Amino acid sequence: MEVVDILKKYSSDIDEEIQNSLSTVDPEELKKSTQHLIKAGGKKIRPSMVVLSAIAVGGAPEEALKTAAAVELIHTFSLIHDDIMDEDDMRRGEPSVHVLWGEPMAILAGDTLFSKAFETVLETPIDNVSYERVVGALKTVVDSCIKICEGQASDMCFEGNFEVSEEAYMNMIYKKTGALIAASTKSGAIIGGGTPEQVELLSEYGRLVGLAFQIQDDYLDVMSDEQDLGKPVGSDVVEGKMTLMVVNALSKASPEDKKELISILEAEDDTNVTRALELFNKYDSIDYAKNIALDNINTAKSLLDELPDSEAKESLSMIADFVVERIH
Amino acid sequence: MEVVDILKKYSSDIDEEIQNSLSTVDPEELKKSTQHLIKAGGKKIRPSMVVLSAIAVGGAPEEALKTAAAVELIHTFSLIHDDIMDEDDMRRGEPSVHVLWGEPMAILAGDTLFSKAFETVLETPIDNVSYERVVGALKTVVDSCIKICEGQASDMCFEGNFEVSEEAYMNMIYKKTGALIAASTKSGAIIGGGTPEQVELLSEYGRLVGLAFQIQDDYLDVMSDEQDLGKPVGSDVVEGKMTLMVVNALSKASPEDKKELISILEAEDDTNVTRALELFNKYDSIDYAKNIALDNINTAKSLLDELPDSEAKESLSMIADFVVERIH
Repeated sequence: MEVVDILKKYSSDIDEEIQNSLSTVDPEELKKSTQHLIKAGGKKIRPSMVVLSAIAVGGAPEEALKTAAAVELIHTFSLIHDDIMDEDDMRRGEPSVHVLWGEPMAILAGDTLFSKAFETVLETPIDNVSYERVVGALKTVVDSCIKICEGQASDMCFEGNFEVSEEAYMNMIYKKTGALIAASTKSGAIIGGGTPEQVELLSEYGRLVGLAFQIQDDYLDVMSDEQDLGKPVGSDVVEGKMTLMVVNALSKASPEDKKELISILEAEDDTNVTRALELFNKYDSIDYAKNIALDNINTAKSLLDELPDSEAKESLSMIADFVVERIH
Repeated sequence: MEVVDILKKYSSDIDEEIQNSLSTVDPEELKKSTQHLIKAGGKKIRPSMVVLSAIAVGGAPEEALKTAAAVELIHTFSLIHDDIMDEDDMRRGEPSVHVLWGEPMAILAGDTLFSKAFETVLETPIDNVSYERVVGALKTVVDSCIKICEGQASDMCFEGNFEVSEEAYMNMIYKKTGALIAASTKSGAIIGGGTPEQVELLSEYGRLVGLAFQIQDDYLDVMSDEQDLGKPVGSDVVEGKMTLMVVNALSKASPEDKKELISILEAEDDTNVTRALELFNKYDSIDYAKNIALDNINTAKSLLDELPDSEAKESLSMIADFVVERIH
């Protein structure tokens, strides 16, 4: 099976849960603004990981669908609010929610999706899944929401600070991107009735895959081409964004090169993108980042060895590979 | 006992829970922005109602403190996001969060408080309070969050629409203001182990008090004086805001008076505030609003008769009176 088929397998069930959840939102303007990005697509990697993790520990997929939908609702909430904060006007090939409905309605759309996510987890039928498991899944999801906010705040605070350590950077991307992916696999394992060890190892698998996911995003920005990427190569450099390549190159560079790289990042224009890439290459920072992503994926996959063999386990292993093989 | 003493009774315990909840927020900028409005004060009516409702049905105050703190965190989240949406630059005598930290950090501060609220409910010690009660309280609080978003969206959609019915207006203020107060009393009753009937009547008590609270706010805007109010009399008129007085006067007014009132509300300046108040009085709309508030409070208080006598029940009755007697 291809990864695309794995992600398709539960996507219509997940979509149905999401649609049910949002169908009662009132007034109509608010409903439409909450549905916009969901309708625009998305790979549904996170909710699929919830369902697969539940199955991998012996649970039934149906039991995990509410939590899966909740994770996608939270992901969508964070995209809408991030786009306001980062002034990003396009998302998934469509104008952002705040562009179409204005900032006030976009803030509310995010808040509504956030509330709906928790409502959805709480609708998990208790007949099949005990209160204890539902509360456990919910705690996991709520904890990741706090981390998402903290990660975005750290990212904003890092702006213009070129002394950020690799440790601080990795902690930021763990919170911003890794935590929700770790929450997906962990909450799935809890709902599926996994042992504490299984819950822990799937949580760690998710954390590692989440970190690799973000590093691969950073890597693609410099190594992909404009057509695959859907945006110009090096746009992170143009925006002066902190990436693992930047952190690594700055930590190794000679005083002159460091000064030059900082001035390119501070300029926030595209005239010296090629020179920035030369500097990343000079200090092997692109390979360095790619290798960390690959190491994380290998460790993540090896953790899965502890689980009983199943198609779901195989699928989680393939998703891990996909994260660092994807070209957009 | 005075209402001020009732509200003081649990406020330091509630404050401690809130401070604990926010003490781990990182980075520092985010922590400070989440703490700002909490430190600026607030009457703590909602969290006190959580604790009192729990006691009134036979529960222990300590069991309800986490949920009480959560309700205050949600109230604070909604104030921060509302102030961004409504471009209100002052709150509790201090500059709003978005004025001090900028909109992006204010959006995140709200999102963080929102997440922390759910985390806090989920930290209720399960030894004393079963999973079922915690899940019940959480469902109540989550449901009110959805309503807060919907109410704020309706309020925004009403802007410039002078054909809003009283029913639609009451539904909007129920969602925007009543729902969280109803959730306070309902969740308290659930955590306190109330019977389904007690939970239902305390929920209805909260809904009625919540509606009266908002109507009293509207009433004070025209009937109080600038010193008590802390802002000019009639500022709702200047802002063209929909209030129960506006809805009532427009529904009764002659075509000429209706046209005049609409033009005053659309002008959004303070030159004709006095004329708007004359029109409210001409159609008895101020008395009409005050009487609805008083009726709600009387019905709310009569519902409490069903509960066993206790100091907590007495306190809830006094809080109901306070809501329509307060002058700011």
